[in-house]
Amino acid sequence: MRAVDIIIRKRDGNALSQEEIKFLIEGCVNKNIPDYQLSAWLMAVFFQGMSTEETAFLTDSMLHSGEIMDLSDIPGKTVDKHSTGGVGDKISIPLAPIAAACGVFVPMMSGRGLGHTGGTLDKLDSITGYKTRLTQEDFKRIIKECGYAMTGQTEKVAPADKILYALRDVTGTVESIPLITASIMSKKAAEGTGALVFDVKCGNGAFMKTPEDAETLARMLVNTGKVLGKKCSALITAMDNPLGKMTGNFLEIEESMDILEGKGPADTTELTLEIAARMNMLAGKASSPEEGRIAAEKAVSSGRAMEIFLKNVALQGGDEKKLLSDRGKRRSQYKTEIRAESSGVISAINAYEVGKAGIVLGVGRTRADEEVCPDAGIIFHAKQGTKVQKGDIIMEAYGKDSSCLNEAADMLQKTIVYAAESGGNNTRNTTGNIILKEITDGK
Amino acid sequence: MRAVDIIIRKRDGNALSQEEIKFLIEGCVNKNIPDYQLSAWLMAVFFQGMSTEETAFLTDSMLHSGEIMDLSDIPGKTVDKHSTGGVGDKISIPLAPIAAACGVFVPMMSGRGLGHTGGTLDKLDSITGYKTRLTQEDFKRIIKECGYAMTGQTEKVAPADKILYALRDVTGTVESIPLITASIMSKKAAEGTGALVFDVKCGNGAFMKTPEDAETLARMLVNTGKVLGKKCSALITAMDNPLGKMTGNFLEIEESMDILEGKGPADTTELTLEIAARMNMLAGKASSPEEGRIAAEKAVSSGRAMEIFLKNVALQGGDEKKLLSDRGKRRSQYKTEIRAESSGVISAINAYEVGKAGIVLGVGRTRADEEVCPDAGIIFHAKQGTKVQKGDIIMEAYGKDSSCLNEAADMLQKTIVYAAESGGNNTRNTTGNIILKEITDGK
Repeated sequence: MRAVDIIIRKRDGNALSQEEIKFLIEGCVNKNIPDYQLSAWLMAVFFQGMSTEETAFLTDSMLHSGEIMDLSDIPGKTVDKHSTGGVGDKISIPLAPIAAACGVFVPMMSGRGLGHTGGTLDKLDSITGYKTRLTQEDFKRIIKECGYAMTGQTEKVAPADKILYALRDVTGTVESIPLITASIMSKKAAEGTGALVFDVKCGNGAFMKTPEDAETLARMLVNTGKVLGKKCSALITAMDNPLGKMTGNFLEIEESMDILEGKGPADTTELTLEIAARMNMLAGKASSPEEGRIAAEKAVSSGRAMEIFLKNVALQGGDEKKLLSDRGKRRSQYKTEIRAESSGVISAINAYEVGKAGIVLGVGRTRADEEVCPDAGIIFHAKQGTKVQKGDIIMEAYGKDSSCLNEAADMLQKTIVYAAESGGNNTRNTTGNIILKEITDGK
Repeated sequence: MRAVDIIIRKRDGNALSQEEIKFLIEGCVNKNIPDYQLSAWLMAVFFQGMSTEETAFLTDSMLHSGEIMDLSDIPGKTVDKHSTGGVGDKISIPLAPIAAACGVFVPMMSGRGLGHTGGTLDKLDSITGYKTRLTQEDFKRIIKECGYAMTGQTEKVAPADKILYALRDVTGTVESIPLITASIMSKKAAEGTGALVFDVKCGNGAFMKTPEDAETLARMLVNTGKVLGKKCSALITAMDNPLGKMTGNFLEIEESMDILEGKGPADTTELTLEIAARMNMLAGKASSPEEGRIAAEKAVSSGRAMEIFLKNVALQGGDEKKLLSDRGKRRSQYKTEIRAESSGVISAINAYEVGKAGIVLGVGRTRADEEVCPDAGIIFHAKQGTKVQKGDIIMEAYGKDSSCLNEAADMLQKTIVYAAESGGNNTRNTTGNIILKEITDGK
């Protein structure tokens, strides 16, 4: 078998066999196949696509390039969630304890933020003492003790994905549905979860900009999961506006706690409960989304979810007392305000641009080796649908230092879209349409 | 400027600017752009193509990556020919002295054989003493003294092409018309010729398998030449059967001498004279192809072309006396015969398969560092259109050693296609249709 022949077969639109895909991925990891052949193949895949079967072969080869977690001794059904990434997306943090409170075991491996989207690990790191690098033993012990655990991916998980992702990033081959699918699925399958709910974000702040692309990805994820023997469902959710009323690191921990106490913003609360409902179904804890949602709501109203969250914080080494006393108070000292430049109704706040302003403030990063600032972030006092008077505070922005504030404020001012004066009808309510579509099988 | 952005722009179907192409090619030569980005870009070009303007920019950047010959002191018009490569294609060898005899100066840089196609340099190397690595000074001196010179490309000619070609070869990006065009044109432009005739081969023994592809390449070559300020014309010629009655190295020198004496096979003679006619036109020595052809025929019948050939052999260090005494006699001692397995009319001899058998015999090579055997080759006693009786000798094959003969004979036997018994009508005559189409401008 020669790599060039496999490249040519894909270039010419043929479906590759399991052996061919395995040959490429093994060659990628053991360096028998040079990067220049891999990148040519990636570009051929970009143009010619891959069938669900090929994508499953690719996922499987990437998965088996590294360590796979064995969760067989967890005494119950395991279900995880994966989001394709957005701005203000803290859903994992309240979701895991809510699902755990419903009896689902949640083995959650998360990533760090890069570019305009935030990362769950960066947010958790802002909890003083909280450890996001768990050994396999600790990860499983904590899941058993409180129903969920949160950790980062080790170097040993799907090394092929790390190599391929680094190549895709510099060769213009990121935006390929089968490659995105295999990258997501190989890492999620490596954490050993039995089932998965996908939150496929759609909009200017997401990687999938159009409903069509989001749906294609959602179907491919669900289908590929099926081939790999994992129960999956997917929600396509709106990502044109930042999620919730806070973006940042510690700020999003705060908003997560608000959600856990039933006083979070409408959009993040809705999304958290709807995803929890699907996790309950996949774990056999509910027979319909409605039943799953009722259980999730009860987990919140009973205080059980918050209790589990605090237990997890303690188990993962976090300073629970400091967390509670920091709440509402821990803010960077470098602050600026963004005020309404005119009176009217805000029709949108551009999520992508908010994410980019977040990088300037120190919430996120553009290179994987950059530090983030735990206390930086944005509090939204008005969002899409809000009527404002000129001069009203729309956002408070907290920066890593004083020098970033002016640039960030300028950027944030430009994210605000006002509805045309007569256009009250085209405004969207924060509670409306957060879930755009549900994909429960890949058809 | 970042390479990844240029890759993405090409991937998305945009035309690249001269600056962008220059950036890539300079980065390719000075190693600032890694191979994996170049190969992803090559694959994007494979799918999205390039406009004539982009192809001219690419050619120009590749050309200027190395040395460009200055032929301004040659006292007349310079015209060269380029063939896209075939089996039995010795045309350059008789063509150059014929054109030179008509008053055209021919600065010919040739290549070696690789794969199923032969190389002019390998053939010339079979003339004892003949030097195919000339210094620039010797190259120009010999052109001035006898009207033409033959040399190989030095390492200093279009180094970007060498790097890109090596990458294309292993990344499935060889078969791209704009990349082929830029590769050919950058090397031909580097030899400093004022005008060019292209012989674009078409058929199973050529890189262009279909008339459509051959025509696209021919138009792109002519158009790109125009943008670069070179007068060009192209002939699309048949390459389904081997050209002439001999393939090999010294054997093709012999057939070239036959053509120079007016007693060559019909197909090679026709092709040589028709290309010479176009070279005469481009050099201003004839005002029509017909007039150009008459001059070429006269160069042969007068003996002037043969005289110039022998003068060139002497000037390039060849042993003229030995060449003449070897003629008709110099054959490898390892010989086999391929005889007709049935009686009938031969409708075709598969050129591609003959080329592959030639590699087995030692005529050609599969790796650039392999040696070829000067005395190996095939003499065809029957070709397409010939009526044969079972047992007639169709080919004599000469090998580099005794061990290759059986395999080569088996391969050669399979190259022979017999016409269906009633199918006398679908046979082709060796004199028919060697020139399929002429492209004099790129429209």
